[in-house]
Amino acid sequence: MDEFGLIARFFAPLAAAEPGALGLTDDAAVLDLPPGTRLVAATDALVAGIHFLADDPPGDIARKLMRVNLSDLAAMGATPRAVLLAAVLPRGTSEAWLAAFADGLSDDAQEFGAPLVGGDTVATDGPLTLALTALGLADGGVLTRAGARAGDDVYVSGTIGDAALGLRVLRGGLAGLDEDQRAVLVSRYRVPIPRLALGRALVGIAHACIDVSDGLIADLGHICACSGLAAQVMAAEVPLSPAARSAITADRNLLSAVLGGGDDYELAFTAPPSARAALQRAGQATGVALARIGVMMPGEGVTVGDAAAFGLVLEKRGFSHF
Amino acid sequence: MDEFGLIARFFAPLAAAEPGALGLTDDAAVLDLPPGTRLVAATDALVAGIHFLADDPPGDIARKLMRVNLSDLAAMGATPRAVLLAAVLPRGTSEAWLAAFADGLSDDAQEFGAPLVGGDTVATDGPLTLALTALGLADGGVLTRAGARAGDDVYVSGTIGDAALGLRVLRGGLAGLDEDQRAVLVSRYRVPIPRLALGRALVGIAHACIDVSDGLIADLGHICACSGLAAQVMAAEVPLSPAARSAITADRNLLSAVLGGGDDYELAFTAPPSARAALQRAGQATGVALARIGVMMPGEGVTVGDAAAFGLVLEKRGFSHF
Repeated sequence: MDEFGLIARFFAPLAAAEPGALGLTDDAAVLDLPPGTRLVAATDALVAGIHFLADDPPGDIARKLMRVNLSDLAAMGATPRAVLLAAVLPRGTSEAWLAAFADGLSDDAQEFGAPLVGGDTVATDGPLTLALTALGLADGGVLTRAGARAGDDVYVSGTIGDAALGLRVLRGGLAGLDEDQRAVLVSRYRVPIPRLALGRALVGIAHACIDVSDGLIADLGHICACSGLAAQVMAAEVPLSPAARSAITADRNLLSAVLGGGDDYELAFTAPPSARAALQRAGQATGVALARIGVMMPGEGVTVGDAAAFGLVLEKRGFSHF
Repeated sequence: MDEFGLIARFFAPLAAAEPGALGLTDDAAVLDLPPGTRLVAATDALVAGIHFLADDPPGDIARKLMRVNLSDLAAMGATPRAVLLAAVLPRGTSEAWLAAFADGLSDDAQEFGAPLVGGDTVATDGPLTLALTALGLADGGVLTRAGARAGDDVYVSGTIGDAALGLRVLRGGLAGLDEDQRAVLVSRYRVPIPRLALGRALVGIAHACIDVSDGLIADLGHICACSGLAAQVMAAEVPLSPAARSAITADRNLLSAVLGGGDDYELAFTAPPSARAALQRAGQATGVALARIGVMMPGEGVTVGDAAAFGLVLEKRGFSHF
């Protein structure tokens, strides 16, 4: 099968519902944006062996690729509109693999309203490498990392650390957890949930927002750097899933992995104390738990306030590639 | 240097003039599009050893990456607005390489009005892999591959085959050409010229358009397939540079490489005979030579009319990766 046959068979069906994709046969996609909206655009690349395991289920790889990009839109308070895919495939990639990958991408494209509208498919002698560009729309306001103010509360959505623990499970660790707990953690690593509805709800309420991809401490550090402030986080307030709590109960040193590990794709954000009631309503309306975990203050960097109580050593302050 | 330092040092300067890039510190870019315009989006990926040579000058690699994407916008008649870059870098990529790459990207971003507004930088154990997404704007009408009509003239801009011959020079071939001619051909392979002004001028005149990336015959084949027609091309009318003409004079079999080889990034398009005067004006206004090389007719596929006169054997009908 040549490049064009591959696109026609596996990827063009994902574009069928979107006229602007031109059937994936053209040089570019053409999208009409509603008047008054702003374009929000993000690109994330995933490499086999670094961002996912080469033998992960191909549908899960597709969904992770989609979701880490949609999470970037969520962190800005934008709504997905379309995606473009650069698929750099090892020679000999099987049709079965491609079919399962396309199925996963199709499922998520439908779930999140983000049809595939373009891209490129090329061969490589290296590892599977996938770059997705997500295009979203914002109705005026967006969230950025730069708006935090001293005195803001610091919040995080959902639970933190599950993805980092899930990766440990995949690498043979956390043998003491039961099968269900291990499966929950692995699922959080492989198929994160972009907090799109929450992100939209936070526009006009939150002062600064980021998605937790590098690790909670590292990503709060980005808010601090962009806002010219410090953050003080109370480790005991960081929300944990039952599975993560079981793991930490068995090995308290894992709290360091939880606070430093990435890939959760929850939203971390700051908002003034006057917004607490509004945030409670936003959490309820979007079905996402919100935990107040700290406070912004003058200074720089992130400190973890009650780490000593946990015997915590923050060895790993986030993931960086170089 | 970590990922954030790398971005801040080499890539953030490219974003300085574009407020929507948010200094490359945020999760996504935010762009306001002028009312009444449509978004045109294309993604192309380049892999070392396939789309460029690993020891090509890094600035030229950056410029080729930029230009092959802008060429996709040109083929739709769109104007560049911004780009996002996924840079998948081999571990140990030097700072000197990155600085030269960023310089090339910066030069082209300024020349073409396409600032870097976002992206991702990750490490790989495989070859250098670069995916760029180009975002453009169209004032209403766009060109596609699908609108050709029987009786249309077939045109191509500039000269054809220089890039394919340039690649042969880089691989040690065409030793009979003089140094200047070899340099011209290599330059056409390494740093193509996206025909943006011509593409814009063709909106409302041309019926179908494509950029020549896979090869003239293969790309005209895409217009044929999308338009449900056949194309007849007169080989003797295909415009050749003096260097290509010298090469073919020395070895007539090279005409096959010229018609089948890719990477020229000229525009191939169809238009009705009634548009000939308008096309002459468009070519003059944009400073690009246009050659009428054939005609569209009922049927399918591309035939080369006077190939026999050249002793032509079309061995290679375009580049396909799989």
